[in-house]
Amino acid sequence: MRLFWLYGYQGVGLADLLSHMGISRQSLYDTFGNKRALFIRVIEHYRATQLTQALALLERDGSPLANVRAVLHFFEQLASDPSGRGCLVANALVELGPHDPEVAALLEETLELLQKGLQRALREARRCGELPARKSPAAISRALTNSLVGMAVMGRLRTEPPLLRKVFLGTLCMLD
Amino acid sequence: MRLFWLYGYQGVGLADLLSHMGISRQSLYDTFGNKRALFIRVIEHYRATQLTQALALLERDGSPLANVRAVLHFFEQLASDPSGRGCLVANALVELGPHDPEVAALLEETLELLQKGLQRALREARRCGELPARKSPAAISRALTNSLVGMAVMGRLRTEPPLLRKVFLGTLCMLD
Repeated sequence: MRLFWLYGYQGVGLADLLSHMGISRQSLYDTFGNKRALFIRVIEHYRATQLTQALALLERDGSPLANVRAVLHFFEQLASDPSGRGCLVANALVELGPHDPEVAALLEETLELLQKGLQRALREARRCGELPARKSPAAISRALTNSLVGMAVMGRLRTEPPLLRKVFLGTLCMLD
Repeated sequence: MRLFWLYGYQGVGLADLLSHMGISRQSLYDTFGNKRALFIRVIEHYRATQLTQALALLERDGSPLANVRAVLHFFEQLASDPSGRGCLVANALVELGPHDPEVAALLEETLELLQKGLQRALREARRCGELPARKSPAAISRALTNSLVGMAVMGRLRTEPPLLRKVFLGTLCMLD
């Protein structure tokens, strides 16, 4: 997963992949089919780990708005990794989005899970008076999901973790 | 420019580039040095055209907040191109950001020009009472620049221009 995350799909050669996984070309083909099928499995694994962690934050008891802020903070941390790996979903979207409809659909569905989770929490936040009544949970959850994608891309610039902090703080303005 | 914009730096082979530009390998090397140097020139050209157009919107007379909204709308349109090309700067950031410090610095500087332009307009908007006094022009300009990067990436999903419209409308919540 780490190789694809940092270097992208085309950026990882088969030789690097095999040496990193410690398997032979034959067992890669036997187990996964080919490099593209392996990449799809990697996206699914990423979703089952990173996205699942983010969604779990939204399910916690207590303030739903604090949970939304925690998800933003989670992605700020993810994007601040000094390697500049950013987020696998955003990277794959840029690299393969217009060229591979099957991968694009998987990525779109992944972002939709995040957006729906944020929307549920924001609806709850509005219900209990934490989010101003004039704010639409649907609109804000879409804008926040988009901001999280943006933060992931900004994280590819390795130079400035404080920049991501400023983006995070600015994005919270959407909630007040 | 169009080839790199849609397929990325690695995604464009030298043969495609030469046939698209109608020049020989020798004249590419004589004129630009190599493929990477050409790519840097392409980013500079993109900046001199697309970014300059966006910044010109901020300089118009009239409501500074309307000018900020016009810039968001400009990037929504840019990202809605049915080819899924998105935005060259965001694409290059994902592809080369962690791996090529010179390109990363050029892209960072490009985003900073946009952010500073938005910040100036937002400061003016606050001064004339269009932006609530509690909103920080610096924070919001950073969050908006990040949202524009996100929109550019969402545009790589070719499926749904209405999605970008919803993101655009949601992002406007930052301003009220």
